Amino acid sequence: MKHNYKMVLQYDGSRFDGWQKQGNTAHTIQGILESTISAYVHEQVDVKGSGRTDQGVHALGQVANFYTLAVINTDEMKLWLNKKLPDTIRITELSEVSLSFHSRKSAVRKTYEYHIWNSTEKNVFAHPYMVTVEDKLDLEKMKTVAKMLCGTHDFIGFSSIKDNKKSTVRTIYSVEIKSNGNEVTISYTGDGFLYHMVRIISGTLIEIGQGKRSLESVVNVLEEKKRSLAGPLAPAQGLFLKLVEYK
Amino acid sequence: MKHNYKMVLQYDGSRFDGWQKQGNTAHTIQGILESTISAYVHEQVDVKGSGRTDQGVHALGQVANFYTLAVINTDEMKLWLNKKLPDTIRITELSEVSLSFHSRKSAVRKTYEYHIWNSTEKNVFAHPYMVTVEDKLDLEKMKTVAKMLCGTHDFIGFSSIKDNKKSTVRTIYSVEIKSNGNEVTISYTGDGFLYHMVRIISGTLIEIGQGKRSLESVVNVLEEKKRSLAGPLAPAQGLFLKLVEYK
Repeated sequence: MKHNYKMVLQYDGSRFDGWQKQGNTAHTIQGILESTISAYVHEQVDVKGSGRTDQGVHALGQVANFYTLAVINTDEMKLWLNKKLPDTIRITELSEVSLSFHSRKSAVRKTYEYHIWNSTEKNVFAHPYMVTVEDKLDLEKMKTVAKMLCGTHDFIGFSSIKDNKKSTVRTIYSVEIKSNGNEVTISYTGDGFLYHMVRIISGTLIEIGQGKRSLESVVNVLEEKKRSLAGPLAPAQGLFLKLVEYK
Repeated sequence: MKHNYKMVLQYDGSRFDGWQKQGNTAHTIQGILESTISAYVHEQVDVKGSGRTDQGVHALGQVANFYTLAVINTDEMKLWLNKKLPDTIRITELSEVSLSFHSRKSAVRKTYEYHIWNSTEKNVFAHPYMVTVEDKLDLEKMKTVAKMLCGTHDFIGFSSIKDNKKSTVRTIYSVEIKSNGNEVTISYTGDGFLYHMVRIISGTLIEIGQGKRSLESVVNVLEEKKRSLAGPLAPAQGLFLKLVEYK
Protein backbone atom coordinates (compact mmCIF):
# COMPACT_ATOMS: atom_id res chain seq x y z
CA MET A 1 0.00 0.00 0.00
CA LYS A 2 1.24 3.45 -0.94
CA HIS A 3 1.77 6.08 1.77
CA ASN A 4 2.06 9.85 1.38
CA TYR A 5 4.40 11.83 3.63
CA LYS A 6 4.53 15.58 4.12
CA MET A 7 7.70 17.42 5.21
CA VAL A 8 8.27 20.98 6.38
CA LEU A 9 11.77 22.19 5.52
CA GLN A 10 14.26 24.95 6.18
CA TYR A 11 17.30 25.61 4.01
CA ASP A 12 20.00 28.18 3.35
CA GLY A 13 19.52 28.84 -0.37
CA SER A 14 23.00 30.36 -0.71
CA ARG A 15 24.47 26.86 -0.38
CA PHE A 16 22.58 25.16 -3.25
CA ASP A 17 21.73 25.50 -6.94
CA GLY A 18 18.05 26.10 -6.22
CA TRP A 19 15.22 23.69 -5.46
CA GLN A 20 14.61 21.91 -8.76
CA LYS A 21 16.73 18.90 -9.67
CA GLN A 22 18.59 19.17 -12.93
CA GLY A 23 20.85 16.87 -14.92
CA ASN A 24 23.33 16.91 -12.09
CA THR A 25 21.17 16.74 -8.98
CA ALA A 26 24.12 16.91 -6.60
CA HIS A 27 23.58 20.51 -5.56
CA THR A 28 19.84 21.00 -5.77
CA ILE A 29 17.66 20.75 -2.68
CA GLN A 30 15.14 18.46 -4.39
CA GLY A 31 17.96 16.21 -5.66
CA ILE A 32 19.61 15.94 -2.25
CA LEU A 33 16.26 15.20 -0.55
CA GLU A 34 15.36 12.51 -3.10
CA SER A 35 18.67 10.67 -2.81
CA THR A 36 18.68 10.86 1.01
CA ILE A 37 15.06 9.74 1.42
CA SER A 38 15.49 7.01 -1.20
CA ALA A 39 18.44 5.64 0.78
CA TYR A 40 16.24 5.41 3.88
CA VAL A 41 13.19 3.76 2.29
CA HIS A 42 15.23 1.56 -0.14
CA GLU A 43 13.07 2.74 -3.00
CA GLN A 44 13.39 5.58 -5.54
CA VAL A 45 11.12 8.42 -4.39
CA ASP A 46 10.04 11.66 -6.07
CA VAL A 47 9.91 14.71 -3.81
CA LYS A 48 7.35 17.33 -4.85
CA GLY A 49 7.73 20.85 -3.44
CA SER A 50 5.03 23.47 -2.89
CA GLY A 51 7.02 25.60 -5.31
CA ARG A 52 10.46 25.79 -6.89
CA THR A 53 12.61 28.27 -5.07
CA ASP A 54 15.23 29.88 -7.34
CA GLN A 55 18.95 29.62 -6.72
CA GLY A 56 19.79 31.75 -3.67
CA VAL A 57 16.24 31.83 -2.26
CA HIS A 58 15.94 30.56 1.32
CA ALA A 59 13.20 28.62 3.10
CA LEU A 60 11.96 28.77 6.67
CA GLY A 61 8.86 26.67 5.94
CA GLN A 62 8.98 25.02 2.52
CA VAL A 63 6.59 22.05 2.24
CA ALA A 64 7.16 18.94 0.15
CA ASN A 65 5.62 15.47 -0.07
CA PHE A 66 6.64 12.03 -1.33
CA TYR A 67 4.98 8.66 -1.86
CA THR A 68 6.50 5.37 -0.72
CA LEU A 69 5.44 1.78 -0.12
CA ALA A 70 7.58 1.74 3.03
CA VAL A 71 5.96 1.96 6.44
CA ILE A 72 7.86 4.67 8.25
CA ASN A 73 8.37 5.65 11.87
CA THR A 74 8.31 9.38 11.14
CA ASP A 75 10.16 10.41 14.34
CA GLU A 76 13.02 8.01 13.61
CA MET A 77 13.15 8.92 9.94
CA LYS A 78 13.18 12.66 10.69
CA LEU A 79 16.13 12.22 13.07
CA TRP A 80 17.98 10.04 10.54
CA LEU A 81 17.38 12.46 7.66
CA ASN A 82 18.52 15.47 9.70
CA LYS A 83 21.76 13.63 10.52
CA LYS A 84 22.40 12.68 6.87
CA LEU A 85 21.32 15.93 5.20
CA PRO A 86 23.78 18.85 4.92
CA ASP A 87 23.88 21.25 7.89
CA THR A 88 22.11 23.78 5.69
CA ILE A 89 18.91 21.70 5.19
CA ARG A 90 16.65 20.80 8.11
CA ILE A 91 13.36 18.93 8.26
CA THR A 92 11.23 20.48 11.01
CA GLU A 93 8.15 18.27 10.54
CA LEU A 94 7.48 14.87 8.95
CA SER A 95 4.04 13.26 9.05
CA GLU A 96 1.84 10.89 7.09
CA VAL A 97 -1.00 12.59 5.19
CA SER A 98 -3.88 11.41 3.02
CA LEU A 99 -3.01 10.12 -0.45
CA SER A 100 -4.78 13.11 -2.01
CA PHE A 101 -2.43 15.66 -0.38
CA HIS A 102 -0.24 17.51 -2.92
CA SER A 103 2.24 20.06 -1.53
CA ARG A 104 1.63 22.50 -4.43
CA LYS A 105 -1.97 21.90 -5.50
CA SER A 106 -3.38 21.60 -1.97
CA ALA A 107 -1.74 24.82 -0.73
CA VAL A 108 -4.23 27.59 0.03
CA ARG A 109 -1.94 30.36 1.37
CA LYS A 110 1.74 31.18 1.11
CA THR A 111 3.84 33.70 3.01
CA TYR A 112 7.16 35.07 1.73
CA GLU A 113 9.52 37.56 3.35
CA TYR A 114 11.90 39.91 1.55
CA HIS A 115 14.86 41.12 3.65
CA ILE A 116 16.65 44.43 3.03
CA TRP A 117 19.73 45.91 4.75
CA ASN A 118 18.99 49.64 4.49
CA SER A 119 22.20 51.51 5.22
CA THR A 120 25.17 53.15 3.53
CA GLU A 121 27.30 51.06 5.93
CA LYS A 122 27.89 47.55 4.61
CA ASN A 123 26.90 44.60 6.80
CA VAL A 124 29.53 41.98 5.93
CA PHE A 125 27.39 39.13 7.27
CA ALA A 126 24.16 40.18 5.51
CA HIS A 127 25.27 39.52 1.95
CA PRO A 128 23.74 36.06 1.34
CA TYR A 129 20.60 36.80 3.40
CA MET A 130 19.62 40.39 2.62
CA VAL A 131 19.86 42.90 -0.18
CA THR A 132 21.66 46.13 0.61
CA VAL A 133 19.86 49.35 -0.34
CA GLU A 134 21.89 52.46 0.48
CA ASP A 135 19.22 55.14 -0.10
CA LYS A 136 17.13 55.66 3.02
CA LEU A 137 13.79 54.01 2.21
CA ASP A 138 10.56 55.97 2.72
CA LEU A 139 8.61 53.24 4.51
CA GLU A 140 5.37 55.23 4.64
CA LYS A 141 5.25 55.53 0.83
CA MET A 142 6.04 51.83 0.54
CA LYS A 143 3.19 50.99 2.95
CA THR A 144 0.74 53.04 0.86
CA VAL A 145 1.68 51.13 -2.30
CA ALA A 146 1.69 47.83 -0.37
CA LYS A 147 -1.98 48.43 0.51
CA MET A 148 -2.83 49.18 -3.14
CA LEU A 149 -1.38 45.82 -4.19
CA CYS A 150 -3.56 43.83 -1.79
CA GLY A 151 -6.70 42.23 -3.18
CA THR A 152 -7.44 40.24 -6.31
CA HIS A 153 -5.62 41.41 -9.44
CA ASP A 154 -4.10 40.10 -12.65
CA PHE A 155 -0.43 40.24 -11.58
CA ILE A 156 1.09 39.20 -14.94
CA GLY A 157 2.90 42.57 -15.19
CA PHE A 158 4.65 41.71 -11.89
CA SER A 159 5.83 38.32 -13.15
CA SER A 160 8.29 36.73 -15.57
CA ILE A 161 5.50 34.75 -17.25
CA LYS A 162 5.55 35.14 -21.03
CA ASP A 163 2.27 33.49 -22.04
CA ASN A 164 -0.84 33.56 -19.89
CA LYS A 165 -2.48 30.29 -20.87
CA LYS A 166 -3.23 29.70 -17.20
CA SER A 167 -4.88 32.33 -15.02
CA THR A 168 -2.49 35.00 -13.77
CA VAL A 169 -5.06 36.37 -11.33
CA ARG A 170 -3.99 36.03 -7.71
CA THR A 171 -5.17 37.39 -4.38
CA ILE A 172 -2.72 39.07 -2.01
CA TYR A 173 -4.13 39.11 1.53
CA SER A 174 -1.49 41.32 3.10
CA VAL A 175 1.81 43.10 2.44
CA GLU A 176 3.46 44.22 5.68
CA ILE A 177 6.55 46.39 5.93
CA LYS A 178 8.52 46.38 9.17
CA SER A 179 11.86 47.85 10.19
CA ASN A 180 14.22 46.89 12.97
CA GLY A 181 17.33 49.06 13.08
CA ASN A 182 18.76 48.99 9.56
CA GLU A 183 16.77 45.89 8.58
CA VAL A 184 13.59 46.30 6.55
CA THR A 185 11.38 43.24 6.00
CA ILE A 186 8.47 43.01 3.57
CA SER A 187 6.06 40.11 4.30
CA TYR A 188 3.63 38.93 1.63
CA THR A 189 0.70 36.57 2.21
CA GLY A 190 -1.48 35.45 -0.68
CA ASP A 191 -3.32 32.51 -2.22
CA GLY A 192 -0.37 31.99 -4.55
CA PHE A 193 2.35 33.91 -6.37
CA LEU A 194 3.36 33.87 -10.05
CA TYR A 195 6.93 33.16 -11.21
CA HIS A 196 9.21 35.96 -9.85
CA MET A 197 6.18 37.90 -8.57
CA VAL A 198 7.48 38.46 -5.03
CA ARG A 199 10.90 39.57 -6.27
CA ILE A 200 9.48 41.94 -8.91
CA ILE A 201 7.01 43.50 -6.45
CA SER A 202 9.91 43.84 -3.97
CA GLY A 203 12.07 45.54 -6.63
CA THR A 204 9.17 47.88 -7.37
CA LEU A 205 8.50 48.67 -3.69
CA ILE A 206 12.22 49.41 -3.19
CA GLU A 207 12.07 51.94 -6.07
CA ILE A 208 9.00 53.51 -4.43
CA GLY A 209 10.92 53.78 -1.14
CA GLN A 210 13.89 55.32 -2.94
CA GLY A 211 11.63 57.95 -4.52
CA LYS A 212 12.49 56.68 -8.02
CA ARG A 213 8.92 55.80 -8.94
CA SER A 214 5.41 57.17 -8.47
CA LEU A 215 2.43 55.48 -6.86
CA GLU A 216 0.57 55.83 -10.17
CA SER A 217 3.22 53.80 -11.99
CA VAL A 218 2.27 50.80 -9.86
CA VAL A 219 -1.41 51.14 -10.76
CA ASN A 220 -0.26 51.26 -14.39
CA VAL A 221 1.45 47.86 -14.11
CA LEU A 222 -1.81 46.31 -12.94
CA GLU A 223 -3.88 48.08 -15.60
CA GLU A 224 -1.53 47.75 -18.58
CA LYS A 225 -0.34 44.27 -17.51
CA LYS A 226 3.15 45.00 -18.87
CA ARG A 227 6.28 43.67 -17.19
CA SER A 228 8.29 46.56 -18.65
CA LEU A 229 6.34 49.04 -16.52
CA ALA A 230 7.27 47.32 -13.21
CA GLY A 231 10.49 47.61 -11.23
CA PRO A 232 13.53 45.34 -11.46
CA LEU A 233 13.69 41.73 -10.30
CA ALA A 234 15.06 42.08 -6.75
CA PRO A 235 17.98 39.71 -6.04
CA ALA A 236 17.21 36.15 -4.92
CA GLN A 237 19.22 36.27 -1.70
CA GLY A 238 16.73 38.58 0.08
CA LEU A 239 13.83 36.14 -0.36
CA PHE A 240 12.60 33.62 2.23
CA LEU A 241 9.68 31.21 1.77
CA LYS A 242 8.19 31.53 5.26
CA LEU A 243 5.02 29.46 5.43
CA VAL A 244 2.78 27.31 3.25
CA GLU A 245 -0.72 26.73 4.59
CA TYR A 246 -3.28 24.02 3.76
CA LYS A 247 -7.00 23.53 4.47
CA MET B 1 57.23 61.81 3.43
CA LYS B 2 55.88 58.47 4.58
CA HIS B 3 52.44 58.27 6.24
CA ASN B 4 51.02 55.47 8.38
CA TYR B 5 47.32 54.63 8.18
CA LYS B 6 45.30 52.48 10.56
CA MET B 7 42.16 50.63 9.50
CA VAL B 8 39.46 48.84 11.52
CA LEU B 9 37.87 46.03 9.52
CA GLN B 10 34.97 43.61 9.51
CA TYR B 11 34.83 40.51 7.34
CA ASP B 12 32.91 37.29 6.85
CA GLY B 13 35.68 34.70 7.10
CA SER B 14 33.57 32.02 5.40
CA ARG B 15 34.06 33.85 2.09
CA PHE B 16 37.91 33.93 2.04
CA ASP B 17 40.97 31.71 2.38
CA GLY B 18 42.00 33.36 5.65
CA TRP B 19 43.86 36.61 6.34
CA GLN B 20 47.40 35.91 5.21
CA LYS B 21 48.32 36.37 1.54
CA GLN B 22 49.76 33.33 -0.16
CA GLY B 23 51.10 32.57 -3.63
CA ASN B 24 47.67 33.26 -5.07
CA THR B 25 46.46 36.29 -3.11
CA ALA B 26 43.13 36.42 -4.89
CA HIS B 27 41.10 35.01 -2.03
CA THR B 28 42.92 36.16 1.10
CA ILE B 29 41.77 39.21 3.00
CA GLN B 30 45.28 40.68 3.20
CA GLY B 31 45.80 40.10 -0.54
CA ILE B 32 42.49 41.76 -1.49
CA LEU B 33 43.19 44.74 0.80
CA GLU B 34 46.69 45.24 -0.59
CA SER B 35 45.60 45.19 -4.22
CA THR B 36 42.63 47.49 -3.57
CA ILE B 37 44.59 50.02 -1.49
CA SER B 38 47.53 49.93 -3.95
CA ALA B 39 45.12 50.81 -6.77
CA TYR B 40 43.96 53.87 -4.81
CA VAL B 41 47.37 55.23 -3.79
CA HIS B 42 49.13 54.22 -7.08
CA GLU B 43 51.88 52.55 -5.10
CA GLN B 44 52.45 48.98 -3.89
CA VAL B 45 51.52 48.85 -0.19
CA ASP B 46 51.96 46.16 2.46
CA VAL B 47 49.04 45.69 4.83
CA LYS B 48 49.96 44.43 8.30
CA GLY B 49 47.23 42.91 10.46
CA SER B 50 47.04 42.74 14.25
CA GLY B 51 47.01 38.98 13.79
CA ARG B 52 46.40 36.38 11.10
CA THR B 53 42.90 35.03 11.30
CA ASP B 54 42.66 31.44 10.05
CA GLN B 55 40.45 30.41 7.16
CA GLY B 56 36.82 30.62 8.30
CA VAL B 57 37.48 32.99 11.23
CA HIS B 58 35.45 36.21 11.14
CA ALA B 59 36.27 39.76 12.22
CA LEU B 60 34.13 42.45 13.76
CA GLY B 61 37.10 44.67 14.65
CA GLN B 62 40.33 43.49 13.01
CA VAL B 63 42.97 46.24 12.88
CA ALA B 64 45.60 46.67 10.16
CA ASN B 65 47.99 49.42 9.07
CA PHE B 66 49.89 50.38 5.93
CA TYR B 67 52.53 52.92 4.96
CA THR B 68 52.29 55.11 1.87
CA LEU B 69 53.87 58.27 0.45
CA ALA B 70 50.45 59.36 -0.74
CA VAL B 71 48.55 62.09 1.11
CA ILE B 72 45.12 60.70 1.65
CA ASN B 73 41.71 62.16 2.40
CA THR B 74 40.72 59.33 4.73
CA ASP B 75 36.94 59.88 4.44
CA GLU B 76 37.08 59.76 0.65
CA MET B 77 39.42 56.78 0.62
CA LYS B 78 37.26 54.85 3.09
CA LEU B 79 34.18 55.39 0.90
CA TRP B 80 36.09 54.38 -2.24
CA LEU B 81 37.54 51.26 -0.65
CA ASN B 82 34.17 50.13 0.72
CA LYS B 83 32.72 50.46 -2.81
CA LYS B 84 35.56 48.48 -4.39
CA LEU B 85 36.00 45.79 -1.74
CA PRO B 86 33.76 42.68 -1.77
CA ASP B 87 30.44 42.98 0.10
CA THR B 88 31.92 40.72 2.76
CA ILE B 89 34.77 43.10 3.77
CA ARG B 90 34.06 46.50 5.32
CA ILE B 91 36.36 49.20 6.62
CA THR B 92 34.69 50.86 9.61
CA GLU B 93 37.50 53.29 10.44
CA LEU B 94 40.47 54.74 8.55
CA SER B 95 42.79 57.30 10.15
CA GLU B 96 46.37 58.52 10.02
CA VAL B 97 48.49 57.42 12.97
CA SER B 98 52.07 58.04 14.09
CA LEU B 99 54.82 56.29 12.11
CA SER B 100 55.61 54.14 15.15
CA PHE B 101 52.13 52.54 15.23
CA HIS B 102 52.19 48.80 14.42
CA SER B 103 48.85 46.98 14.35
CA ARG B 104 50.30 43.84 15.98
CA LYS B 105 53.16 45.08 18.17
CA SER B 106 51.31 48.13 19.53
CA ALA B 107 48.20 46.13 20.53
CA VAL B 108 47.68 45.89 24.30
CA ARG B 109 44.37 44.00 24.52
CA LYS B 110 42.38 41.75 22.24
CA THR B 111 38.85 40.43 22.54
CA TYR B 112 37.58 37.34 20.74
CA GLU B 113 34.13 35.75 20.75
CA TYR B 114 33.33 32.09 20.20
CA HIS B 115 29.75 31.37 19.04
CA ILE B 116 27.93 28.09 19.71
CA TRP B 117 24.48 26.92 18.57
CA ASN B 118 23.47 24.67 21.47
CA SER B 119 20.53 22.56 20.34
CA THR B 120 19.64 19.17 18.89
CA GLU B 121 17.64 21.10 16.29
CA LYS B 122 19.83 22.28 13.41
CA ASN B 123 19.91 25.99 12.57
CA VAL B 124 20.36 26.01 8.80
CA PHE B 125 21.63 29.61 8.79
CA ALA B 126 24.12 29.17 11.66
CA HIS B 127 26.55 26.87 9.88
CA PRO B 128 29.25 29.37 8.76
CA TYR B 129 28.92 31.53 11.90
CA MET B 130 28.48 29.15 14.84
CA VAL B 131 29.43 25.67 15.87
CA THR B 132 26.57 23.32 16.68
CA VAL B 133 26.83 21.42 19.96
CA GLU B 134 23.90 19.07 20.52
CA ASP B 135 24.53 18.12 24.18
CA LYS B 136 22.96 20.65 26.53
CA LEU B 137 25.94 22.63 27.89
CA ASP B 138 26.32 23.07 31.65
CA LEU B 139 27.08 26.79 31.63
CA GLU B 140 27.75 26.98 35.37
CA LYS B 141 30.56 24.42 35.12
CA MET B 142 31.97 26.27 32.12
CA LYS B 143 31.91 29.56 34.07
CA THR B 144 33.85 27.97 36.94
CA VAL B 145 36.59 26.80 34.56
CA ALA B 146 36.51 30.13 32.71
CA LYS B 147 37.40 31.87 36.00
CA MET B 148 40.28 29.44 36.61
CA LEU B 149 41.77 30.31 33.22
CA CYS B 150 41.86 34.04 33.94
CA GLY B 151 45.16 35.51 35.08
CA THR B 152 48.76 35.13 33.92
CA HIS B 153 49.74 31.60 32.87
CA ASP B 154 51.96 29.76 30.43
CA PHE B 155 49.28 28.79 27.91
CA ILE B 156 51.49 26.67 25.62
CA GLY B 157 49.38 23.57 26.37
CA PHE B 158 46.38 25.47 24.98
CA SER B 159 48.17 26.35 21.73
CA SER B 160 49.43 24.77 18.51
CA ILE B 161 52.93 26.19 19.11
CA LYS B 162 55.62 23.49 18.77
CA ASP B 163 58.72 25.33 20.05
CA ASN B 164 58.58 27.98 22.74
CA LYS B 165 61.51 30.17 21.74
CA LYS B 166 59.34 33.18 22.45
CA SER B 167 57.42 33.57 25.69
CA THR B 168 54.17 31.65 25.78
CA VAL B 169 53.01 33.41 28.95
CA ARG B 170 49.86 35.45 28.43
CA THR B 171 47.35 37.21 30.66
CA ILE B 172 43.63 36.60 30.22
CA TYR B 173 41.64 39.42 31.81
CA SER B 174 38.20 37.88 31.44
CA VAL B 175 36.30 34.91 29.99
CA GLU B 176 32.55 35.54 29.92
CA ILE B 177 29.91 32.99 28.99
CA LYS B 178 26.48 34.21 27.95
CA SER B 179 23.44 32.49 26.53
CA ASN B 180 20.57 33.87 24.50
CA GLY B 181 18.01 31.22 23.56
CA ASN B 182 19.99 28.41 21.94
CA GLU B 183 23.04 30.63 21.33
CA VAL B 184 25.99 30.43 23.71
CA THR B 185 28.79 33.00 23.35
CA ILE B 186 32.18 32.83 25.07
CA SER B 187 34.05 36.19 25.14
CA TYR B 188 37.78 36.28 25.84
CA THR B 189 39.79 39.42 26.64
CA GLY B 190 43.55 39.24 27.15
CA ASP B 191 46.85 40.92 26.44
CA GLY B 192 47.37 38.52 23.56
CA PHE B 193 46.59 34.98 22.47
CA LEU B 194 48.88 32.23 21.18
CA TYR B 195 48.32 30.43 17.88
CA HIS B 196 44.97 28.52 18.11
CA MET B 197 44.70 29.39 21.83
CA VAL B 198 41.12 30.72 21.72
CA ARG B 199 39.90 27.76 19.66
CA ILE B 200 41.60 25.15 21.89
CA ILE B 201 40.30 26.79 25.09
CA SER B 202 36.85 26.89 23.47
CA GLY B 203 37.09 23.20 22.55
CA THR B 204 38.09 22.46 26.14
CA LEU B 205 35.29 24.57 27.65
CA ILE B 206 32.76 22.83 25.38
CA GLU B 207 33.94 19.44 26.71
CA ILE B 208 33.56 20.79 30.26
CA GLY B 209 30.00 21.88 29.44
CA GLN B 210 29.24 18.46 27.92
CA GLY B 211 30.46 16.74 31.09
CA LYS B 212 33.21 14.96 29.14
CA ARG B 213 36.07 16.47 31.14
CA SER B 214 36.88 17.37 34.76
CA LEU B 215 37.86 20.77 36.15
CA GLU B 216 41.15 19.24 37.33
CA SER B 217 42.06 18.24 33.76
CA VAL B 218 42.18 21.94 32.86
CA VAL B 219 44.54 22.71 35.73
CA ASN B 220 46.69 19.83 34.44
CA VAL B 221 47.05 21.46 31.01
CA LEU B 222 48.44 24.61 32.65
CA GLU B 223 50.75 22.65 34.97
CA GLU B 224 51.98 19.97 32.56
CA LYS B 225 52.04 22.37 29.56
CA LYS B 226 51.02 19.55 27.22
CA ARG B 227 48.76 20.14 24.22
CA SER B 228 47.65 16.50 24.37
CA LEU B 229 45.96 17.10 27.73
CA ALA B 230 43.73 19.91 26.40
CA GLY B 231 40.49 19.60 24.44
CA PRO B 232 40.10 19.62 20.66
CA LEU B 233 40.66 22.61 18.38
CA ALA B 234 37.14 24.06 18.07
CA PRO B 235 36.15 24.76 14.44
CA ALA B 236 37.18 28.10 12.90
CA GLN B 237 33.69 29.22 11.90
CA GLY B 238 32.61 29.94 15.49
CA LEU B 239 35.41 32.46 16.08
CA PHE B 240 35.13 36.24 15.76
CA LEU B 241 37.95 38.75 16.37
CA LYS B 242 35.89 41.39 18.15
CA LEU B 243 38.20 44.19 19.27
CA VAL B 244 41.89 45.15 19.28
CA GLU B 245 42.87 47.86 21.74
CA TYR B 246 45.89 50.16 21.81
CA LYS B 247 47.36 52.51 24.39
